[in-house]
Amino acid sequence: MNDSVLNRLRSDAKKIFQASLDAVDPYKAVKRFMKIDHDTMILGEMSPVKLDMSLYNRIFLVGGGKATAPMARAVEDVLGTRISKGIINVKYGFGEDLKITVVNEAGHPLPDHNSVEGTAKILALLEDAGEKDLVISLISGGGSALLTRPADGISLSDKQEITSKLLECGASIDEINTVRKHISASKGGQMAKVAYPATTINFMLSDVVGDRKDIIASGPFVPDSSTFQDAQRIIDKYALSDIPHTIKEYIKAGMEGKVFETPKEGDPIFERVFNFIVGSNILALISAEKEARSLGYNTVILSSMVEGETKEVAHVHSAIAREIVKTDRPVSPPACVISGGETTVTIHGDGLGGRNQEFCLASALDIKNCPPRMAVMSCGTDGNDGPTDAAGAIVDPLTVKRGENMGMDALDYLMRNDSYNYFKKTGELVITGPTKTNVMDVRLILVR
Amino acid sequence: MNDSVLNRLRSDAKKIFQASLDAVDPYKAVKRFMKIDHDTMILGEMSPVKLDMSLYNRIFLVGGGKATAPMARAVEDVLGTRISKGIINVKYGFGEDLKITVVNEAGHPLPDHNSVEGTAKILALLEDAGEKDLVISLISGGGSALLTRPADGISLSDKQEITSKLLECGASIDEINTVRKHISASKGGQMAKVAYPATTINFMLSDVVGDRKDIIASGPFVPDSSTFQDAQRIIDKYALSDIPHTIKEYIKAGMEGKVFETPKEGDPIFERVFNFIVGSNILALISAEKEARSLGYNTVILSSMVEGETKEVAHVHSAIAREIVKTDRPVSPPACVISGGETTVTIHGDGLGGRNQEFCLASALDIKNCPPRMAVMSCGTDGNDGPTDAAGAIVDPLTVKRGENMGMDALDYLMRNDSYNYFKKTGELVITGPTKTNVMDVRLILVR
Repeated sequence: MNDSVLNRLRSDAKKIFQASLDAVDPYKAVKRFMKIDHDTMILGEMSPVKLDMSLYNRIFLVGGGKATAPMARAVEDVLGTRISKGIINVKYGFGEDLKITVVNEAGHPLPDHNSVEGTAKILALLEDAGEKDLVISLISGGGSALLTRPADGISLSDKQEITSKLLECGASIDEINTVRKHISASKGGQMAKVAYPATTINFMLSDVVGDRKDIIASGPFVPDSSTFQDAQRIIDKYALSDIPHTIKEYIKAGMEGKVFETPKEGDPIFERVFNFIVGSNILALISAEKEARSLGYNTVILSSMVEGETKEVAHVHSAIAREIVKTDRPVSPPACVISGGETTVTIHGDGLGGRNQEFCLASALDIKNCPPRMAVMSCGTDGNDGPTDAAGAIVDPLTVKRGENMGMDALDYLMRNDSYNYFKKTGELVITGPTKTNVMDVRLILVR
Repeated sequence: MNDSVLNRLRSDAKKIFQASLDAVDPYKAVKRFMKIDHDTMILGEMSPVKLDMSLYNRIFLVGGGKATAPMARAVEDVLGTRISKGIINVKYGFGEDLKITVVNEAGHPLPDHNSVEGTAKILALLEDAGEKDLVISLISGGGSALLTRPADGISLSDKQEITSKLLECGASIDEINTVRKHISASKGGQMAKVAYPATTINFMLSDVVGDRKDIIASGPFVPDSSTFQDAQRIIDKYALSDIPHTIKEYIKAGMEGKVFETPKEGDPIFERVFNFIVGSNILALISAEKEARSLGYNTVILSSMVEGETKEVAHVHSAIAREIVKTDRPVSPPACVISGGETTVTIHGDGLGGRNQEFCLASALDIKNCPPRMAVMSCGTDGNDGPTDAAGAIVDPLTVKRGENMGMDALDYLMRNDSYNYFKKTGELVITGPTKTNVMDVRLILVR
């Protein structure tokens, strides 16, 4: 009896997660977003933007990010030979053969010579694009490393040196980005500047919490709100000494107005740029919700922006699960609670796992006294949770007992951050293989 | 403009919190729950239990807990001189003069001589109650310390010694309760055993997450599921040596069946016991929701069982607040998100504050980039957050800026756990004075 309810919940959870993946599949997301009707390009579904393609002589396709090969394939499938030329940078192993577009494989997360060389080719193409040309740009997670061009006089190793130093001293990601944008010739709207006066359509698959366009891949086509002064203030704040003299001099030159500032909001170049988010965590959650409803669940999306220490985030989610069991709140069973975003794990042990598996193991402990009519799932949309081959896991109120019967103490595995080995034994890993997308994580609580 | 929206939100939040307090006011909660119609006692509102009072010769009123004086006043106001005799134990300073009931003030959180003496008088009254008598019992937070009777041969200091040792070795609250129930003559259903064969109505004001009746004040009228064997296992698990020999011997005697086990589920004595929760966190939240709706808000109750590290819990709540702003989920503005329970704070600094104020300061940082159409409030229902005179605080997206303008760095205050001094300066403390109730905390997020 328990088993049939739990099996049903597990199978439903997997269907719901699959629906969220479908929504953010790079190929499908672009295909869904961009349609052609004769000479009209129709972008988006709800309130579509229409572009008269007869206005443009040439169409160039550029891009950078782990997911851009299937995104480019989608654009090729829609536009075919209307594309004059295409170059994209993807991570090693993430390439595929495309009909028109040249796919450069390059280093990620650390950029290498290929990243710089591929980016140079992309910038040359953008430079070539004129007023009567259309640029279609594809951006996804990893794009910041894959679209790398240090500013004049700065070497790649200089950039890496200051990034490491900023990371070490505990600078926030916003602060690191501010500095990086000001020692780069591609980030912070600078690609838009190179592409100008061409019209640019920029499709983004967002891998950042809150989907801020200036943060996704460091916003190569998006106005930057930070300045050289801000960059210098951050360097001063953390009392960074020994930074490469090339960087010191470049930022000084920027403050003195001797080199160009990143383009700002209101700059006329952005009148010719259309930025669209074609895939994001909230879109994945909305798709999950739709599937859950079709399976008969009462649903609530908590937030696509959940951050924080994984175990603690699990406690809050479990509190909601237990409230559903007890008082039918916030939704009555059959209930599906959906959340997204990306949590962090403070490592205490030397086990194997990832934030999603850790979330599941912490949840398993929190719900062990609940009736066996509940399942909790957490998975990374990239199919890759931490340094493991699992996307995540799926647990229920019997998970702790299941481990006990195999001689495992769930709390001990959690404390050693060894969720992968726990679930490997209980058979509760979710393995999807690499999905080639990444819009962070999807968490589901199902209660019947 | 901002100011008028923010003032409105703050004023609404205070009204909503006040509504939650009204629902769990000890006097009002009992008055609402117990009505008399001629000789019929009507208990509860939705599906009331009716008791024919003509069946009983005498009515005895007993109780223990910080909130029991106003609860007893309510019973006196309803039953008047039908009460034959009453004795309750309350914390020093929490007493009031009642018409019939004797109010013993005693030690809390550490029980003292007065606790033991008052409990002895209560047990004598229960012993005196016969088959034709009715016992009305009142239990609230603090009842465990205030209703103290160590088992035969064990001294109060023996009990305190093992409790300290269990706390030191990191035993869970469930484990500590299991041991304590088995060295007590009042906890774990034993008062019900003494009252038998009288009929007992037990009114509880719950101060524990999840409202488990066997945990509230250690469940003096509730079946106990743990055994002497469990108690011994816990002592063995933590390798507690040097525990008082009286305790060692008593638990040994229990395992050998030489002293009575705590009464279990199914024991006929419980056929004569009616346990009711008259006030709890979820009841406070439901009342808050009702008030929020009447003020025009779309509402969602997340959970009354939220636990975990305060800052991290704040991050999850803020993620929901930001999602409302961005995508109208989980509810569209005007929105009111409600949660309850009790979080913890890992102390890193030597500042002044409490979990509710810490929650507010962490939230203020999380929402500082949100539009100024949001307020976050967190307050303890006892009016007493940590060692401060505030119940909690109320913040908005300008709170961090407000502090900056006064030379304060919100993050620094948070790191030093000094939320009280921050909010004292910004004028954002919520001060209610002692409310004489306690159903843990109420958190509100309001977005317009």
